[in-house]
Amino acid sequence: MQTDAVRVVLLAGGYGGAKMAHGFWLLGRPVELTVVGNTADDLELHGLHISPDLDTVMYTLAGVANPESGWGVRDETWSAAAMLERYGAETWFGLGDRDLATHVRRTELLAAGLRLTEVTGELSRALGVSTRLLPVTDDRVRTQVRLADGWYGFQDYFVRRHHADDVLELRFEGIADARPTAEVLEAIGSAQLIVIAPSNPFVSIGPLLAVAGVTEAMRASAAQLVAISPIVAGAALRGPAEQMLRNLGHEPSAAGVARLYAERYPGLLDVFVLDRADEGLAPAVAAAGLSPRLGSSVMKVEGDRARLAAEVLELAGLPAW
Amino acid sequence: MQTDAVRVVLLAGGYGGAKMAHGFWLLGRPVELTVVGNTADDLELHGLHISPDLDTVMYTLAGVANPESGWGVRDETWSAAAMLERYGAETWFGLGDRDLATHVRRTELLAAGLRLTEVTGELSRALGVSTRLLPVTDDRVRTQVRLADGWYGFQDYFVRRHHADDVLELRFEGIADARPTAEVLEAIGSAQLIVIAPSNPFVSIGPLLAVAGVTEAMRASAAQLVAISPIVAGAALRGPAEQMLRNLGHEPSAAGVARLYAERYPGLLDVFVLDRADEGLAPAVAAAGLSPRLGSSVMKVEGDRARLAAEVLELAGLPAW
Repeated sequence: MQTDAVRVVLLAGGYGGAKMAHGFWLLGRPVELTVVGNTADDLELHGLHISPDLDTVMYTLAGVANPESGWGVRDETWSAAAMLERYGAETWFGLGDRDLATHVRRTELLAAGLRLTEVTGELSRALGVSTRLLPVTDDRVRTQVRLADGWYGFQDYFVRRHHADDVLELRFEGIADARPTAEVLEAIGSAQLIVIAPSNPFVSIGPLLAVAGVTEAMRASAAQLVAISPIVAGAALRGPAEQMLRNLGHEPSAAGVARLYAERYPGLLDVFVLDRADEGLAPAVAAAGLSPRLGSSVMKVEGDRARLAAEVLELAGLPAW
Repeated sequence: MQTDAVRVVLLAGGYGGAKMAHGFWLLGRPVELTVVGNTADDLELHGLHISPDLDTVMYTLAGVANPESGWGVRDETWSAAAMLERYGAETWFGLGDRDLATHVRRTELLAAGLRLTEVTGELSRALGVSTRLLPVTDDRVRTQVRLADGWYGFQDYFVRRHHADDVLELRFEGIADARPTAEVLEAIGSAQLIVIAPSNPFVSIGPLLAVAGVTEAMRASAAQLVAISPIVAGAALRGPAEQMLRNLGHEPSAAGVARLYAERYPGLLDVFVLDRADEGLAPAVAAAGLSPRLGSSVMKVEGDRARLAAEVLELAGLPAW
């Protein structure tokens, strides 16, 4: 590690978090990036432990992500899934052959007694990922959502039911007993900049910040805390964030997200980055007590990712270039 | 079931057993075939329960076996194996993507509390196999072989070391506590014909007959008992049977196999089928106390399989045609 590397911690879900992490990686400026990933959308399927958010970040940083779907591996084959279907197994959660190998290996290493943190490190290193990727906790936390007809596991709602339903309530099963890992606390404690990725505030960032000790460590850190809006011009970059905001009584806008963060975590965040398209919402963000800054949070091509990362460093007084 | 169906039980390993089973299936004459399969070469790899012999029989009967390799599934892809290799997992045991799905599903169903017998039935039915395929036992039995430098698991010797070593001794871990299933005992008890497939007498047939109660049930059965030589003209149809016979002090010939069966299981078998190429060994088989019959035990094409099955039925006075 070069002594002038900026120590950045990125709190990340899957899609938006992965792109943001990739942006930091693409920068020329030395950044010692630690991604703290969400595990509350993990699931067990066919006896395998699947960590969709961690995998999306890992595959993206390894350069093997499927660029079309936003999940899974590129150049994927689907032979095992076809066979599992013949066997009458559940196939609503798409498992490509390469992706399946990840889950088989993860499950094998967990069964051998490794912590999820260690397993994630081993898988990432094997794929050539130099960025440190940490699950926020090694403990089991599972997001559940209440829909009109009852409680569902997150992936059941998100994948099987295509996140079409209104979410009336959220809970994180296991959260009371979950603790952040020592690695996560250390990374937060020594960070110069902590970034909340443009991820879903309820189901990606929410469970991360709900693990007892995480927000405390963030408050105790000397790092600047910057959140990036996952909503641009009233629409989610991807996924159900906009609908969830509405369902749960918030304004479906960048300002709504800013207010949500400000109300739930008073005084935690310093800066809130809005897309330039939402410039008119800056006063509302300021009224919520966060310092509004304009950035380019829509990441359509790889150059956008690096640009946003550079903007975030710039805003934090740690210019990339 | 038609009332005139011949009730046949086939004791089978992988390759030769699968071909023999397929032969019975190919016959026009109604045969109610039950294959009792070897599980002592099962292994756990990547946390998955793999049953190579059962799978070879199942894939063969389902018409999805790889005809070149003699194991695995045809039209296979290898994406997961490539990924597992990147992850540094053990890759000496070839796991194609479709095959991997079988092991994932088996492991899932076993973890859900099903017996291996039930799992095997469910997988087979899903692949359209009408023949009943039964593991000899639901209990854990594992063949181990002593090589020059110590004891090895069977697949470690067979696949990883390409069965090149001399086998000095054999043992079946867990055999003392293993019991045949009720389904196996019932099938043996009601069989009209019990056939020992042209499989390795030590590691395919040996562990089947070593499960306490199997030979007793065979003796109590009214069925004719016919064994088919896995050695033709001094060479194994496939695999290390010839070398094992030599290593373990037996003549590497059909007569050597006949004597081995006659000595280990006195009075158990009625008929021993030699290939026509071994006609000269018939007196030696007779001297061992088995009734020698000539057949065509080399099964190169599918027609050979049906022909051998028909010959075996014919020998037993239950003509196929």
